[in-house]
Amino acid sequence: MTATGRVSIVGAGPGDPELITVRALARIRSAEVLVYDRLVDPALVAEAPPTAERVFAGKARGFAALEQHEIEALLIARAYAGNHVVRLKGGDPYVFGRGGEEVASLVAAGIPVEVVPGVSSALAVPASAGIPVTHRELASSLTIVTGHEDPTKAEAAVDWDWLAASQARL
Amino acid sequence: MTATGRVSIVGAGPGDPELITVRALARIRSAEVLVYDRLVDPALVAEAPPTAERVFAGKARGFAALEQHEIEALLIARAYAGNHVVRLKGGDPYVFGRGGEEVASLVAAGIPVEVVPGVSSALAVPASAGIPVTHRELASSLTIVTGHEDPTKAEAAVDWDWLAASQARL
Repeated sequence: MTATGRVSIVGAGPGDPELITVRALARIRSAEVLVYDRLVDPALVAEAPPTAERVFAGKARGFAALEQHEIEALLIARAYAGNHVVRLKGGDPYVFGRGGEEVASLVAAGIPVEVVPGVSSALAVPASAGIPVTHRELASSLTIVTGHEDPTKAEAAVDWDWLAASQARL
Repeated sequence: MTATGRVSIVGAGPGDPELITVRALARIRSAEVLVYDRLVDPALVAEAPPTAERVFAGKARGFAALEQHEIEALLIARAYAGNHVVRLKGGDPYVFGRGGEEVASLVAAGIPVEVVPGVSSALAVPASAGIPVTHRELASSLTIVTGHEDPTKAEAAVDWDWLAASQARL
């Protein structure tokens, strides 16, 4: 069996619907199936064609409309059925967005997949508060850390001791 | 003297002109003065109105079309003259883009300024090579470090020993 459809894993940006990229908006507007997360603005969901199938796949603490493996199965099934599937995620799909996992599942299933990056909330939310995350005189590096590690891990992966030991000078 | 113009400091994204945000493109299309960097795609410069003044402010190793203080003086002068000035920078203005310095100068001059974030090359270039910068099982944090520190600093600010000591687990 060969997939005749394809999947675009698309970053919606940090919340404000005008902060989506031109390419990401074009993908939504040509979607046949739109699978979207909780943090995606309704104005962006409304950009999909009226005929598009819309699937809410949001997760919040203790509740998931669809489990991760169900989301991946849905993307695969709809692509095999010949659809252009758009998987719309808040922020950037590759920054704490589990985009890498979804891409890996799709590639394993032989489905053509592209990733359309988005403005990461990790950078844009400080910016909206007037805070540059780097500054030539004040910050020559930055570290972004998940606030929500996979609870099934045997041991936490974030090295808090190391983070606290940063001696970053001005 | 009160400024009647304003400045938008706008991220152009990681190179591909379709990876600019919808708001950033709208700002270019309404610019009266466009001041742009070396890494900005010519297709984006072409989106400015034909009547807009275009100023190349690119820097490359050992050469600058305009020095940083000259760029800031130009933004201030054109805004005081009543223009909507768009300062277009590669990537995101606040990730190693000196956007923070330009905002500070404009605020000090009493000029209304907004920052429109962009997709950072630090995240999108790995993505275009198929590399998620985070992965639930493989990377729970990431650190972004400048490759080009201010050469006038008395001492390097990047703490390479600390970076090398990362014990980040999977």
